[in-house]
Amino acid sequence: MQIQVTKKFLSDALSTLERIIPARSNNPVLSYVKIQPSDRGIYLSGTNLELDMEGFVPAQVENGQAVIVPAHLFAQIVRNLPGELVEINLNQSEITLTSGGSNFKLQTGDLSAFPEIQFPSHSDVEMDAKELNRSLSSVRYATATEAFQQVFRGIKFELRAKQVRLVASDGFRLALRDFTGSGVDRNLIVPAKSADELNRILKEGLVKLTFGDHLLSVASDRTKMNIKLLDGEFPDYERVIPSNIKVKVQLPASKLKEAVSRVAVLADKNANNRVEFLVSESKLQLIAEGDYGRAQEVLEVLQEGSEPAISLGFNAKFVSDALGPMEGDVVLQLSGVTTPALFKTTDESGYLAVVVPLRI
Amino acid sequence: MQIQVTKKFLSDALSTLERIIPARSNNPVLSYVKIQPSDRGIYLSGTNLELDMEGFVPAQVENGQAVIVPAHLFAQIVRNLPGELVEINLNQSEITLTSGGSNFKLQTGDLSAFPEIQFPSHSDVEMDAKELNRSLSSVRYATATEAFQQVFRGIKFELRAKQVRLVASDGFRLALRDFTGSGVDRNLIVPAKSADELNRILKEGLVKLTFGDHLLSVASDRTKMNIKLLDGEFPDYERVIPSNIKVKVQLPASKLKEAVSRVAVLADKNANNRVEFLVSESKLQLIAEGDYGRAQEVLEVLQEGSEPAISLGFNAKFVSDALGPMEGDVVLQLSGVTTPALFKTTDESGYLAVVVPLRI
Repeated sequence: MQIQVTKKFLSDALSTLERIIPARSNNPVLSYVKIQPSDRGIYLSGTNLELDMEGFVPAQVENGQAVIVPAHLFAQIVRNLPGELVEINLNQSEITLTSGGSNFKLQTGDLSAFPEIQFPSHSDVEMDAKELNRSLSSVRYATATEAFQQVFRGIKFELRAKQVRLVASDGFRLALRDFTGSGVDRNLIVPAKSADELNRILKEGLVKLTFGDHLLSVASDRTKMNIKLLDGEFPDYERVIPSNIKVKVQLPASKLKEAVSRVAVLADKNANNRVEFLVSESKLQLIAEGDYGRAQEVLEVLQEGSEPAISLGFNAKFVSDALGPMEGDVVLQLSGVTTPALFKTTDESGYLAVVVPLRI
Repeated sequence: MQIQVTKKFLSDALSTLERIIPARSNNPVLSYVKIQPSDRGIYLSGTNLELDMEGFVPAQVENGQAVIVPAHLFAQIVRNLPGELVEINLNQSEITLTSGGSNFKLQTGDLSAFPEIQFPSHSDVEMDAKELNRSLSSVRYATATEAFQQVFRGIKFELRAKQVRLVASDGFRLALRDFTGSGVDRNLIVPAKSADELNRILKEGLVKLTFGDHLLSVASDRTKMNIKLLDGEFPDYERVIPSNIKVKVQLPASKLKEAVSRVAVLADKNANNRVEFLVSESKLQLIAEGDYGRAQEVLEVLQEGSEPAISLGFNAKFVSDALGPMEGDVVLQLSGVTTPALFKTTDESGYLAVVVPLRI
């Protein structure tokens, strides 16, 4: 026996790594995971070249040498093992897993062909893992899947002395969330897909960030990550946040979200799922009309503002997305029928969304 | 108000119908559902030409005429309605749904273009819905997805005086299950996909069957179905059930199933996921070997039979499938290394499976 490890710990670490290690690649060695024994456990690492990841698994280690094995196959074997404990022997040409009545011999790959993965030993800033998690989840929807500017496919981190702000936009809408923290002054843009993987490893406590050359390194719990950053300047988004508000309406965010989704069933898919918002006399009327019929819903709202009636169209999905991270009441703030609308909560949640109305 | 109906009842009936009504069709009217008001409720019906279906929804009906509307859109609207009660007005050109603050107007289709759907008013035989459900679920896996003979894509119903038998086979394996019932003597072959839909509507109590011209009609609870049957003769499957058994091994079915799935991770995908079964001295050894390594597992079994050792290969998936419907112990009965193997339970469950070993 060289290494004895709890199946659950090993399996959990592999599940996290499996998400970033490609199942297939033009460079086949990228589909491997590296197993590196140490004094008190084993390090598992892999990369997709956009993102490196390392997980630590506590284990009883006598000896053994570093090897690489096909990641997904290895994970599948471990998950299916019959016992709670796994014995692993690492040799140059094969590793052996024994558990219960099962015995698996898996051929190793060429370790010298595997990319070198290194993580910083110091950290530049710490922040609350849960706050970062909530903020990433809140703004993620507003990133572009395709866009003329690559930066729109990322989430901007604005680190300031006392505040962290995450911003995402696709040019038609914008989402941002602020939270207390940082202590440094730095901007960086994290690719949306890497942000998703970062978000998955954020749990309790503090997460440590280290700034490298076009690189952000993150250490959280037993997992480490290097994220390749997006180059480029994030556009000046503050100018699209409307300040000259003409009409405000307030109602429960969940109520508006449900009503918009409901009427949108009949909205014209070829006209950006247009739903008409008509505000008048403390009522918000939603109307959608398409090839198959017409849907209408009237909602009671708290209204503030001098306009006798205002009518404008939104993409139903954009409104639903903007309302998604909200709890309690939303205050929908309209600056005009062609200018951006602001969605805020009544409390100081730090979250806000901007949606540009559809043209008439 | 013409019709008042509970959202849940309407939504449930539509969900069942939605499964068979095509979302798109060369004949667009097939994507519609017919709404037919009656004294005590409304009938909803639709067809995919292989299968007609009708559901009854209790409702308070004042008046209204039969119409057709796009099925999936209608179902989506109903599911999202805010209230528990729905008011429906059926007119020739449009139907109106009102619930809570929502109002939907949906254009109707051309009723005269909709296929005529009729169900028999008598039944030929009744059987226990749960037994039929269990048997359909037990043999379904053995049907062929593609085969030289169309009948292999169906499930054979053998109705006899005191017994019902369902049989399925794809030429490489076979599954059958018997249960008490019937009272008639009849064979019919139900297409696998229609059998799946039939299975979904089987709940408690008795199900009524009526035999038509190449057609099986079924009435269960509030749902009726006409199923177009497969023509052709089901091959004489009884001759592949082995009788000259040389070795029997007995062990818990779940244990064998898990072990086979486990070692199969390393089996050669290009060699039918071959897993070697080696029986010797009250031990069953499973071995799989492929490009990435070798897996082995030893299981204790009760052995009966004179052969000193027997070794044969199976497709791992076929073994897992055969064990799927089993509870308790399986008795694996081997007739030779190239002849079919029989999988039975120790109790009189009525279920058995036959799997042909892989060639050497």
